[in-house]
Amino acid sequence: MEKRLQGLEKKILIEAGETPAVVYEMKRQVESFREKLESVEHLSWLGLFKELSEGTQKPSPFYHKRTLRKTREECEHVREKFLQMSSLEVSEEVRQYLKTPTFDNWQWEDAEIMVLLQVMYTDLDFIATFNIEPEVLHQFLYEVYKRYNNIPFHNFKHCFCVTQMMYGLIWLTDLKSKIDSIDLLTMLSSAVCHDLDHTGYNNAYQINARTELALRYNDISPLENHHCAVAFEILEKNENNIFRNLTTEQYKRIREGIIKCILATDMTRHNEILNKFKSILPVFDFSNKDHRDVLMMIMIKVSDISNEARPMDVAEPWLDCLLQEFYNQSDMEKLEGLPVTPFMDRDKVTKPSSQTGFIGFVLLPLFIELANLFPCLEQHIIDPVRKALDYYTEMEKALEREKLIRAQSDKAATAKNKDTTPQNLQNAQKTADSLSEAGNALKPPTL
Amino acid sequence: MEKRLQGLEKKILIEAGETPAVVYEMKRQVESFREKLESVEHLSWLGLFKELSEGTQKPSPFYHKRTLRKTREECEHVREKFLQMSSLEVSEEVRQYLKTPTFDNWQWEDAEIMVLLQVMYTDLDFIATFNIEPEVLHQFLYEVYKRYNNIPFHNFKHCFCVTQMMYGLIWLTDLKSKIDSIDLLTMLSSAVCHDLDHTGYNNAYQINARTELALRYNDISPLENHHCAVAFEILEKNENNIFRNLTTEQYKRIREGIIKCILATDMTRHNEILNKFKSILPVFDFSNKDHRDVLMMIMIKVSDISNEARPMDVAEPWLDCLLQEFYNQSDMEKLEGLPVTPFMDRDKVTKPSSQTGFIGFVLLPLFIELANLFPCLEQHIIDPVRKALDYYTEMEKALEREKLIRAQSDKAATAKNKDTTPQNLQNAQKTADSLSEAGNALKPPTL
Repeated sequence: MEKRLQGLEKKILIEAGETPAVVYEMKRQVESFREKLESVEHLSWLGLFKELSEGTQKPSPFYHKRTLRKTREECEHVREKFLQMSSLEVSEEVRQYLKTPTFDNWQWEDAEIMVLLQVMYTDLDFIATFNIEPEVLHQFLYEVYKRYNNIPFHNFKHCFCVTQMMYGLIWLTDLKSKIDSIDLLTMLSSAVCHDLDHTGYNNAYQINARTELALRYNDISPLENHHCAVAFEILEKNENNIFRNLTTEQYKRIREGIIKCILATDMTRHNEILNKFKSILPVFDFSNKDHRDVLMMIMIKVSDISNEARPMDVAEPWLDCLLQEFYNQSDMEKLEGLPVTPFMDRDKVTKPSSQTGFIGFVLLPLFIELANLFPCLEQHIIDPVRKALDYYTEMEKALEREKLIRAQSDKAATAKNKDTTPQNLQNAQKTADSLSEAGNALKPPTL
Repeated sequence: MEKRLQGLEKKILIEAGETPAVVYEMKRQVESFREKLESVEHLSWLGLFKELSEGTQKPSPFYHKRTLRKTREECEHVREKFLQMSSLEVSEEVRQYLKTPTFDNWQWEDAEIMVLLQVMYTDLDFIATFNIEPEVLHQFLYEVYKRYNNIPFHNFKHCFCVTQMMYGLIWLTDLKSKIDSIDLLTMLSSAVCHDLDHTGYNNAYQINARTELALRYNDISPLENHHCAVAFEILEKNENNIFRNLTTEQYKRIREGIIKCILATDMTRHNEILNKFKSILPVFDFSNKDHRDVLMMIMIKVSDISNEARPMDVAEPWLDCLLQEFYNQSDMEKLEGLPVTPFMDRDKVTKPSSQTGFIGFVLLPLFIELANLFPCLEQHIIDPVRKALDYYTEMEKALEREKLIRAQSDKAATAKNKDTTPQNLQNAQKTADSLSEAGNALKPPTL
């Protein structure tokens, strides 16, 4: 009896309290599922599929750093702030300031930026004209905010700047009197969505690295196609769809328009689009749909690369951000043995050299054509760009002079066969001085 | 004591050995996850994502019937057969027959078709020139076979017919002496892949129904973009990649070429491509890459719609298949309240009426231009198409006559206020007779 009792006690102690092994196994399985589902976001569908079904070689990852995605906490925090502020009245002073290209985005945090975007939809009468419910606009702006990544340049603040420039251009050119509201809504919304889910690596990288995006889009504007698809992925949800009260015809038109505008931001199409605009300019007719389409593409292109039309102390930090993103890409290209995009190579590009060519050959020729249609833009966007060009040209010259001086003194030092370190240090100081000089001389007064 | 002991023993026997109910519940949960992950194929990524994360409104399903996908058993069966046959020698007679547009696809089952495709790669010297390993070619062809769906028209047999016509054209025009092997490999492989994963609903449907494909591709050639992306999804796997021994430069060229060719099969681009070809025809130069690119696009277009260039008893069943697929779509469009594609509407289209317009306005003008470059094609593809046009024109006339007669007799019957059923039956018989007459008179001798 005692033995039976002891046997039972032992059994209970050892076995009964224990969780069967199968449970642990299952727990592992569930956790791996959860991880898979949560970490493989919808963009990595190809990877998910392959992993589960056949487990073979994957195309290069679309995201190199998962950390570029905004975290849930970050989003929730901003959302809360935004919703709190969204009912507050924005002052008339700010509303007017928002209509000018001198607007300084660096003064505003993300939740405030969302309020400013809301102001744009309100002050262009979109809310009333298209019966956009406030909650839907909030939800839309929040989803847009969420889908811009934490990367140096193509982030939510860039989205805002492009949209704000578009907004400014619409007011400066009095476009409301020339084209109808649907086109204006198309233009503003295209700007809002034009870089959704950008990952900081351009199309050349996508194609050369054979990423999932390049594979999906057959190397044809992979990023722009993706930005646009994400935009309509957001809009497909009824609670985000600011166009949900439009008629089918209106929706169709706005979808076509947004697709055209966002795809037009692929810079490889720059000449094609600019030439088309030039060819219709002498006979431009606001009542001609084809003409309006080209104008809309030109205006989003102008807005997209308009940083240098802003005050220098707004524009210059943007250039730093851009170069940081460029350098990240070229570093990655070197690491992966891919062709290195020349204008992104930190060994070849300097701040001024990156800008002089771009402003002279790309930006100004584009801006000038738009100003040909709207002469009033001359002072607002052409003049500041010319100043920026002068500024960077001077900076470049100063750098060249420094290089020359340094080379000469290096040569002299080598000839004397002396230790050259102090001389080099001195040169570095000189370079810094002359850069600063050139900079101060050209910098416009701060806002 | 004995009682207590028995109580304990009972408890241990019953409970300790048993797995808690919660475990079974969890097991069910895990299995349902697995099912979800496996059954929601990679194409429904959006659905998967939304379902798990937010559970809201989905875009229209891309696949209306899951059954159109081939089953695993079906695939395995065909694969086995194919591998068994693939080492057998194909007779010289068949090899020669395979080079002619009179080839009858209906005599061959899918596994045999895969062997015939293998023969094409062999007899065009691709195996030797590009060092394609037999197992890789088998694996590639099998994956291609798998990704053509069980639908009436755009299935694996259509893939074969288009490829076989391309193959025939290459031999008939002696293209091997005019352009290099990479271009030929591009053309044949484009034909093989040109309709991968077609679901039987055309682009208009995709766009109007706002399917996932239309959303993903921003309404721009959604199907063709998808066919092409699936092609390279297959090729991205090393074990399927028949191009894996090409140099980077060669691979780049072939990728560009295949994308161009497959995207050229979007019929909305018909006039654009045909006009481009017409404009270069007077100065056509095989050493000019742009000219060759257009020729390749024209040749895949010709192959894609070449059924009517085949013997009548090969071509006519294909028309039945096509109309079945069309009718399926228009039925679905009616069901979903979408715009009904006119040439697919079973209430408006008859067999002859569908063909006369298509052959006269689309097919012949295209074929004639290709025959302008290669006059030898006249007898092989133009003559049979003209015969088909005559055949369907006669059939259409017969139908018209019947309609007229029926209308008159209906009128007479109504006038007499008699029961008209027998008369109608008689008319129906007459229609059938005259159709059959017209058909027999025009049908070319069978192969």
